[in-house]
Amino acid sequence: MTELEYIIKQISKTNKKNFENYVVTRIWHGINKTDVKFTTQQFVNRPNGHALTDMFFPQFNLHIEIDEPFHNKQKELDLNRESDIIEATNHKIERVKITDDINFINKQIDYIINEISALRTKNIDENTFEPWDLGKEFNPEYHREKGYLDTKENPAFKTISHACNCLGQNYKDGSQRSYVKSKVYENHNIWFPKFYNNDKWDNWISDDGLTITEKCKTESKQKEHFDSLMNSSVNRIVFPRSKDNLGFTLYRFKGIFKTDKENSSIENGIIHRRINNRIEIKK
Amino acid sequence: MTELEYIIKQISKTNKKNFENYVVTRIWHGINKTDVKFTTQQFVNRPNGHALTDMFFPQFNLHIEIDEPFHNKQKELDLNRESDIIEATNHKIERVKITDDINFINKQIDYIINEISALRTKNIDENTFEPWDLGKEFNPEYHREKGYLDTKENPAFKTISHACNCLGQNYKDGSQRSYVKSKVYENHNIWFPKFYNNDKWDNWISDDGLTITEKCKTESKQKEHFDSLMNSSVNRIVFPRSKDNLGFTLYRFKGIFKTDKENSSIENGIIHRRINNRIEIKK
Repeated sequence: MTELEYIIKQISKTNKKNFENYVVTRIWHGINKTDVKFTTQQFVNRPNGHALTDMFFPQFNLHIEIDEPFHNKQKELDLNRESDIIEATNHKIERVKITDDINFINKQIDYIINEISALRTKNIDENTFEPWDLGKEFNPEYHREKGYLDTKENPAFKTISHACNCLGQNYKDGSQRSYVKSKVYENHNIWFPKFYNNDKWDNWISDDGLTITEKCKTESKQKEHFDSLMNSSVNRIVFPRSKDNLGFTLYRFKGIFKTDKENSSIENGIIHRRINNRIEIKK
Repeated sequence: MTELEYIIKQISKTNKKNFENYVVTRIWHGINKTDVKFTTQQFVNRPNGHALTDMFFPQFNLHIEIDEPFHNKQKELDLNRESDIIEATNHKIERVKITDDINFINKQIDYIINEISALRTKNIDENTFEPWDLGKEFNPEYHREKGYLDTKENPAFKTISHACNCLGQNYKDGSQRSYVKSKVYENHNIWFPKFYNNDKWDNWISDDGLTITEKCKTESKQKEHFDSLMNSSVNRIVFPRSKDNLGFTLYRFKGIFKTDKENSSIENGIIHRRINNRIEIKK
């Protein structure tokens, strides 16, 4: 996929939503820098639950919401449990209010364009700007050089092997195991759960991203699974499998989790609590 | 319809065509002037037949064509005989070539934005710029003050009464007659033909806009109609009924026509030739 294709795919998510298409294209063309990344229709985790933002600039943790009169966004929130959801705590939201007055709308958009352009310049000046690079973003080597993964930056990989190898494994693609025992981090497994319905497991993560509930759907194995976890002290480095807004599979880092044995049960599931939102990469 | 709604409707014509949507929005947002008008997917009359241009700036007689690789535009030319078609002789065409290189595409678009902005400034300086004004464009009084209709400017009206009253009639809406005898222009009828199929007539205009063929479909009336025209010397001021690209009915001025008696016949139809592409408005 070229940058152009990526941008056009993002814009095309707004195709049937004419005001969104107007605002999104005006902002993007107005910024006029191909080193700035955006997504459209991005699901986010907020302290009070999931939400959908119309445009998201990950380099600046900035979201755009387009407020259309008589348009109830809740209705179109077609989130499913496979959807990619990013952490958005402390992210900034700018709103564009749609009225009949095109000059008023354009003024609001000009303000946002200026704001983003200024943030970009500031980050460049402070040496903290990471130019958007499709080839780099999901590359394990890029993250290894950075030296950490942090949920605040919403890092993600395209494959299980990329995620594993970023953490020092030497994993070959092919076997798509949902568990990989870490060779580098003692007493840690790297886990690629599905938080959407599947034959064997009913697992989910809380809206705030802090709690995972794990339930084995095969009744005959529930007790064995429960007992083995109660006797284990292995933490989990978690990369749930999801689909991004363009339909591509992603494994996004969600932190390190520890089993909460006290609150786990066969009936209600095994509870895992996030104990760290960051992992240092050992070289 | 507000300006914003108009612009969004024009852009939405490109919705399923992602490269077009990218180019059209980038050009429009880049010009960044709400006094500039554009249409998308505009049918035009060229010396060698009809064509469809992707974006048209009527104030500057400038068209944009977007050349996509492996994309045969002819296939999607869903022209029907009701479509609004404008005169485009001597109009300028700029092309945007789509490649994988977003910076190359953006450079081409920047060139066009600069060209249009310069034309606008030049026209303002020379006092020939007519700011886009949705309320004025189809207003008979606006054209009366201008003093003429000229096919080169593609003037049009929304209703039969507006066209008639622009030419000095005092016509009330209601009766939708296709003929109105002019009170102002001796031996002239104002004619609102349909160049698309209908019960009573099979009329059409040539691609170059110079020849109209008129055929009565009611066999029992053909001879009477033919004879009456052969004995008449009434010219026609022609405003064919059409639909613009947003589906709105238009009556666009196509010139003054005179019956070519020598070349007319019952079998092949009555032939009318354009004798003037301009009419002076008498006050």
